[in-house]
Amino acid sequence: MYILESTPFDELYVDEEITLYREVIEQDIDLFSTVSGDMNPIHLDEKYARDTIFGERIAHGMLSGAIISAALSCSLPGPGSVYLSQNLKFLSPIKIGDVIEIKLKVLEKIPQNRVKVSTQIFNQTGKQLVDGDAFSYVPNEKQTVHVNSFPFLFKLV
Amino acid sequence: MYILESTPFDELYVDEEITLYREVIEQDIDLFSTVSGDMNPIHLDEKYARDTIFGERIAHGMLSGAIISAALSCSLPGPGSVYLSQNLKFLSPIKIGDVIEIKLKVLEKIPQNRVKVSTQIFNQTGKQLVDGDAFSYVPNEKQTVHVNSFPFLFKLV
Repeated sequence: MYILESTPFDELYVDEEITLYREVIEQDIDLFSTVSGDMNPIHLDEKYARDTIFGERIAHGMLSGAIISAALSCSLPGPGSVYLSQNLKFLSPIKIGDVIEIKLKVLEKIPQNRVKVSTQIFNQTGKQLVDGDAFSYVPNEKQTVHVNSFPFLFKLV
Repeated sequence: MYILESTPFDELYVDEEITLYREVIEQDIDLFSTVSGDMNPIHLDEKYARDTIFGERIAHGMLSGAIISAALSCSLPGPGSVYLSQNLKFLSPIKIGDVIEIKLKVLEKIPQNRVKVSTQIFNQTGKQLVDGDAFSYVPNEKQTVHVNSFPFLFKLV
């Protein structure tokens, strides 16, 4: 059991940031194929993928969107925030075994409890894989929820 | 076994569109929780969700992103296209049992094999749930792939 706590809108500040880590495993790509409905062999068939420009199976671009959305919902701004919009640029694909770094940073606080957050992903070599930003609605009250699993590691600063 | 065929860049035209349908079931939300890592009770716990402004469990906003990404990769532009970017506005949540309509429409053809596609989702009452657009790279050659499942229905026009 994990306890997730949000930051109330008034306590969020511009330049506040958080870094999370996660290993992307083969099962993540298999599950994302099922849930999205995208069974293209570039994601699932190693032999097929070997003959493409990527040379190996790659994650779906939007798996990074799914992981970013979880990071936003679970950590910054956290539970109780409402996801309003997301822009994503897929710069380079996540590959099986990558330990990705998800960086979230508050860019702007906007009236009526809106916040703009920068959303970036890097791989273990420091190469940027995803760029983007999101808008969320953040309640005034702190929200605390209990969840059964949380597949991210936080950076200790 | 399903056969998916892409449209080569030269054959794509502005205003070309496709509509797909898909029922969103409880299992989709459960799977998306696992693959994203977002186990917030608003998505998983019916009793918790009943006391929120939504009154029931809702899908993660980015599940709609996952479904849009699959529609782009499988139908328009289809296999072999490379997903470059995506903008999404989450207007209203998908709920369990919704039969959603995914509308893709070519907005613009851009030099060097780029295409801008409008990406919208509506529910069975015609209410718009998601707005957005995507950029993809589309090869000159037709791509044909075989996939084991394809959880969308096409509109017969």
